[in-house]
Amino acid sequence: MASSPPLGEFERIARFFAPLAAPGALDLRDDAALIDGPGGTQYVVTADAIAEGVHFFGNDPPAQVAQKLLRVNLSDLAAKGAEPVGYLLTMALPASCDEDWLAAFAKGLATDQKSYGIGLLGGDSIAVQGPATLSVTAIGRVRRGRAVLRRGARPGNIIYVSGSLGDGALGLQALKGRLGGIDRKALEFLIARYRLPEPRLAIGQKLAGIALAMADVSDGLVSDLGHICEASNLGATIEAAALPLSPATRAAIEAVPQRIFAALSGGDDYELVFAAPRKSARAIAALARRLGVPLTPIGRFEKESGVRVLDMAGEKMTLPRPGYRHF
Amino acid sequence: MASSPPLGEFERIARFFAPLAAPGALDLRDDAALIDGPGGTQYVVTADAIAEGVHFFGNDPPAQVAQKLLRVNLSDLAAKGAEPVGYLLTMALPASCDEDWLAAFAKGLATDQKSYGIGLLGGDSIAVQGPATLSVTAIGRVRRGRAVLRRGARPGNIIYVSGSLGDGALGLQALKGRLGGIDRKALEFLIARYRLPEPRLAIGQKLAGIALAMADVSDGLVSDLGHICEASNLGATIEAAALPLSPATRAAIEAVPQRIFAALSGGDDYELVFAAPRKSARAIAALARRLGVPLTPIGRFEKESGVRVLDMAGEKMTLPRPGYRHF
Repeated sequence: MASSPPLGEFERIARFFAPLAAPGALDLRDDAALIDGPGGTQYVVTADAIAEGVHFFGNDPPAQVAQKLLRVNLSDLAAKGAEPVGYLLTMALPASCDEDWLAAFAKGLATDQKSYGIGLLGGDSIAVQGPATLSVTAIGRVRRGRAVLRRGARPGNIIYVSGSLGDGALGLQALKGRLGGIDRKALEFLIARYRLPEPRLAIGQKLAGIALAMADVSDGLVSDLGHICEASNLGATIEAAALPLSPATRAAIEAVPQRIFAALSGGDDYELVFAAPRKSARAIAALARRLGVPLTPIGRFEKESGVRVLDMAGEKMTLPRPGYRHF
Repeated sequence: MASSPPLGEFERIARFFAPLAAPGALDLRDDAALIDGPGGTQYVVTADAIAEGVHFFGNDPPAQVAQKLLRVNLSDLAAKGAEPVGYLLTMALPASCDEDWLAAFAKGLATDQKSYGIGLLGGDSIAVQGPATLSVTAIGRVRRGRAVLRRGARPGNIIYVSGSLGDGALGLQALKGRLGGIDRKALEFLIARYRLPEPRLAIGQKLAGIALAMADVSDGLVSDLGHICEASNLGATIEAAALPLSPATRAAIEAVPQRIFAALSGGDDYELVFAAPRKSARAIAALARRLGVPLTPIGRFEKESGVRVLDMAGEKMTLPRPGYRHF
């Protein structure tokens, strides 16, 4: 094995962990599991971890670290069409995370608990000598059978995405001082999008019953759309020209055209990507207007497997990498 | 604050996190929360994390690390009288945890999933440069209102413990090569108790309806009994001579009498400590016989706060430390 490349996260899950999946775990292909709730409901449970030096930096404001941790988990609930209920938090903290750090971290949790109507259900904290790692298990609720899964897309379905793409990945570049050519206001917008993503909970809940399959864009559009394709035994074609871009990201791409890859394969946007039949176009447009968030058609699902991206001229683009790989 | 001693885990929880507690989180004083389940049931949810270098060692067999991680969480369910349902697992792993490590780790999970009738519901894995940290959120099930909490003990109630105490802490000493004076078979027994604790699930479930308050002995008897006392607004007196000891631990104490403190304030036994009224003595004795596990009365709850330990002569003992402190 020494000469093989290391397995990606999905290969690891498939090889070592999928055989351990419980009923309701959706073969561990959905970033969430379903368990029976009271009175015709189901709980959606999902867990995500973040680490210092990988997903946040030691000098990031602790309140924002707390909020990002919660929000990436709430985004997983949003992608299932679930309403959040509560969460558990485990923290492995080095001594540098002192009481001031903890107080600020807890304040960030309190702010978001209020925003999203959730509470802390439990957890654990341990001391480590090494980078801080933080893990949340989030619990949400759906009407039985209404959770939107990754499986379920059909050939001919339209691919939609919420909000705008590329902001998160460009925000991270901006934080690293690598995003020249745009003004300060645009930089600040992108950094805020990276640090404080907005889980699309209201949209997700309204899409239950409309979307046939859904995922959140955490690893990058092509990668997360790829998960829907794999789970649905399909492929997809998207048109780069159709991608919804914020003015800041549009300006960044005008300065350096290769930055379009941030919208295609950058992570950290926490927007929703979903499949819907053509006949739902009107309902989706009305929903977007009502919620004040764009829901943009960017391509279609097809029988041929794989995710293809067409450039402005209708030619296939080659992506430098399919999405962020954890390993 | 620089000159104050660092806060212990419980002070941290009380100060920073208890204000964030959701309804059902039992004020975060119970290591578990209750949420409504279907048909007259409640789910018990609990989370515990372990770290390399603190709770396990880099050269420990990965299968045993996996099993210990699961079992410490199942022990929390046992202490609530719950039947396990499933779990989520998050892993922050350094590159040294390669595919062989993962394969062995997953095998350990598979073994215990079969033993305890549970499945994997989800999780996350991330790469870190630093020690491995592993976190499990376990979900169990009780009949509504039957979960045994830490609050609920009354003055005059008898304190019982399951199994034997001190084995876990002495096993850790043995692993470190610091446990002289006993034979190899005893050493191996103690190391196995440290590495593979037995969550007292069957006993816990049978005690629902008998025990008025319960906790598992993870941080040390005096500390965990202290949690029951605080949650119940009581104190307790225990008799050192009454502590149930395995032959190995008894031999270790005969060699070095101070090792009695392993049974009083050492951690990692994962036995149950619970409160029951005097009138339940017969039912408890019958249960112990039926399940083949000792349930030993070791003292009583009292109105006066604090946990007191009496030595053989009936004199108050002074403990070197009340239990393992994470911080």
